[in-house]
Amino acid sequence: MSSQPETISFAGGLPNPSFFPADKLANAAETVLRKDGASALQYWVTEGYLPLRSFIADWHSCHAGTKVQAEEVLILNGSQQGLDLAGRLFLNSGSRVLLEGPSYLGAIQAFSAYQPEFHHIQIQEGGPDPNLFSSMMEKLKPVLFYSVPDFQNPTGNKYDSTHREQLASVGNSTETIWVEDNPYKEICFEEKREPDFYSLIPGKTIYLGSFSKIISPGMRLGWAIGPKDVIKKMTVAKQAADLHSNSLAQRIIFQFLLDNSLDNHLNSIRTFYRSQADHMVAAMHQYFPLSVQWIIPKGGMFIWVTLPKEIKARVLLDKAISKNVLFVPGESFYVGGKEGTNCLRMNFSNPTKEEITKGIKILADLIFQMMDE
Amino acid sequence: MSSQPETISFAGGLPNPSFFPADKLANAAETVLRKDGASALQYWVTEGYLPLRSFIADWHSCHAGTKVQAEEVLILNGSQQGLDLAGRLFLNSGSRVLLEGPSYLGAIQAFSAYQPEFHHIQIQEGGPDPNLFSSMMEKLKPVLFYSVPDFQNPTGNKYDSTHREQLASVGNSTETIWVEDNPYKEICFEEKREPDFYSLIPGKTIYLGSFSKIISPGMRLGWAIGPKDVIKKMTVAKQAADLHSNSLAQRIIFQFLLDNSLDNHLNSIRTFYRSQADHMVAAMHQYFPLSVQWIIPKGGMFIWVTLPKEIKARVLLDKAISKNVLFVPGESFYVGGKEGTNCLRMNFSNPTKEEITKGIKILADLIFQMMDE
Repeated sequence: MSSQPETISFAGGLPNPSFFPADKLANAAETVLRKDGASALQYWVTEGYLPLRSFIADWHSCHAGTKVQAEEVLILNGSQQGLDLAGRLFLNSGSRVLLEGPSYLGAIQAFSAYQPEFHHIQIQEGGPDPNLFSSMMEKLKPVLFYSVPDFQNPTGNKYDSTHREQLASVGNSTETIWVEDNPYKEICFEEKREPDFYSLIPGKTIYLGSFSKIISPGMRLGWAIGPKDVIKKMTVAKQAADLHSNSLAQRIIFQFLLDNSLDNHLNSIRTFYRSQADHMVAAMHQYFPLSVQWIIPKGGMFIWVTLPKEIKARVLLDKAISKNVLFVPGESFYVGGKEGTNCLRMNFSNPTKEEITKGIKILADLIFQMMDE
Repeated sequence: MSSQPETISFAGGLPNPSFFPADKLANAAETVLRKDGASALQYWVTEGYLPLRSFIADWHSCHAGTKVQAEEVLILNGSQQGLDLAGRLFLNSGSRVLLEGPSYLGAIQAFSAYQPEFHHIQIQEGGPDPNLFSSMMEKLKPVLFYSVPDFQNPTGNKYDSTHREQLASVGNSTETIWVEDNPYKEICFEEKREPDFYSLIPGKTIYLGSFSKIISPGMRLGWAIGPKDVIKKMTVAKQAADLHSNSLAQRIIFQFLLDNSLDNHLNSIRTFYRSQADHMVAAMHQYFPLSVQWIIPKGGMFIWVTLPKEIKARVLLDKAISKNVLFVPGESFYVGGKEGTNCLRMNFSNPTKEEITKGIKILADLIFQMMDE
């Protein structure tokens, strides 16, 4: 028995570093710096490196069912910056923001800088209830609706086509700006793709994408796609905030995309992440009490687990920590922290399969104990 | 005679790309990515890569006469981001900001997002008049004073020791936050260094530094040095804005600093830039009318030229453009654009010596013509 038991963490939100293409990026960096160093290292325009913007526009056009032009793409320091810039452009103190419930913590932090009034709409499997959504949109008239429609952080949920159509029909009849945050889109476990809100609610949607989950988060490269006038305003705001995104990193990623098959790279991530998710779901089936529920992930990095109402995730976490197992309790993903108290966000991209089995068993034992108390 | 006359630009604000150490950065990128790729490409803490923060703290401590600790350093996406974060923390609509006159355009843009009330204090050789400064500080009680004390953009002026001491004594008796923006500090043409305001007004100064002018602007790496509580608040604001700065770029620059002599690199830039400045000053002496004045630069990338009052720089620019010569007219560096109308910002870091001679001659001819009109 080890005298230094290792911590099993389901708490992280990090992509698995074994899929960072470090050697290929080293080759790309070599090519860029030796051939075009003077240009790659100089100041650049705020909008970003045009060949990369064109690549993103074409790539998005392939999948999204709507034609995107390079001028509609703004390169960001990770998609997080898109949340901040959207807040800057659209939010003032007291502006209403509708969030999914639960929602991504980083978005709550980014928007909070502009002191809006937050409201949550509960996520269910397939998306929020369209009737409730319609009545909340009518009552609140939010300035902004923030949504992560594919493999959301923290629930792993994907909006199905029925929910997309019904929600989009509400969206098209309102003035609300849709922020469609989609960093996990390419980490899909099924072939079937749903249309983006960007194509369903044209002219009102700001789509955010990122290389963080599929190439490297440390390189801080994401993008916004939006109507030309919105992208122009975001560009002016970004220029004041930091002039432009790292242009060397933009060139290196573009060179990597030129020299390598992105599809092959994505398929290797998808295969591995899917096997991790399957393993975690199987372990939960085997060990968790029947009263514990979860959404089976169709992509992404997370599983959202719902315990019986009377069990507090924060109390479970205290007990789990003493057994060297970590997760994030659900209330962290709600403004105010009063909902989701019986929920857990479980990350499956980083632990080994052995750790998953062992950790789920430990959590299961603790949950059974707490149910008996 | 060429049928395609080349434009001679004194308008740019770019460092000369022949001093970007592209090959050395390629070697550094190779080392970082092959040895430590998984870590360099992963998410990182908002504060930045600790060895780089320590390097900056030690380097600053050497020159500044005050001991800086790594915890007082926050890595930024270029020092421009420090201006935005300072605005975020300290400015509200109507907050008073005192700027040098003229001042750096990017700072005006960054602060403008927070809708402050701007005031200028005229720069003279050696710094603003201490008596005027004292009375303006007393009358305006600005939230923030923004200063570029070494080789300012756009004037090239350096505050001398008398001005520093007198201004700092005023600063120490007020509540005003000093933003000391110092991207050109290391591009000095003389051995003699003056103490930073960071050491003269301890506890109230946010110092901004940058690798943009000395290594590469495209890599977007700058830093803020400030009191620990201010750095903590800036870190929280930065986390909401973009999580963290490019960690691969931080590692590459740190590896470059480990493997190479920064002093040798800086000395080669200083020698070249100084010879460029000397050449431009000599050409201005030779060709410009006696009534044209300028500040002889002791560092940096710019010379500020003052024409006789009746000559408008914008009119001169129109005529110069038709002769393929460019510069930036002075009013661009004032909020409101009503001052500096007879001034020019001349960049000497990028044109060749032949272009400098030829361009100054063309401008001189135009100025003589305008004086006769």
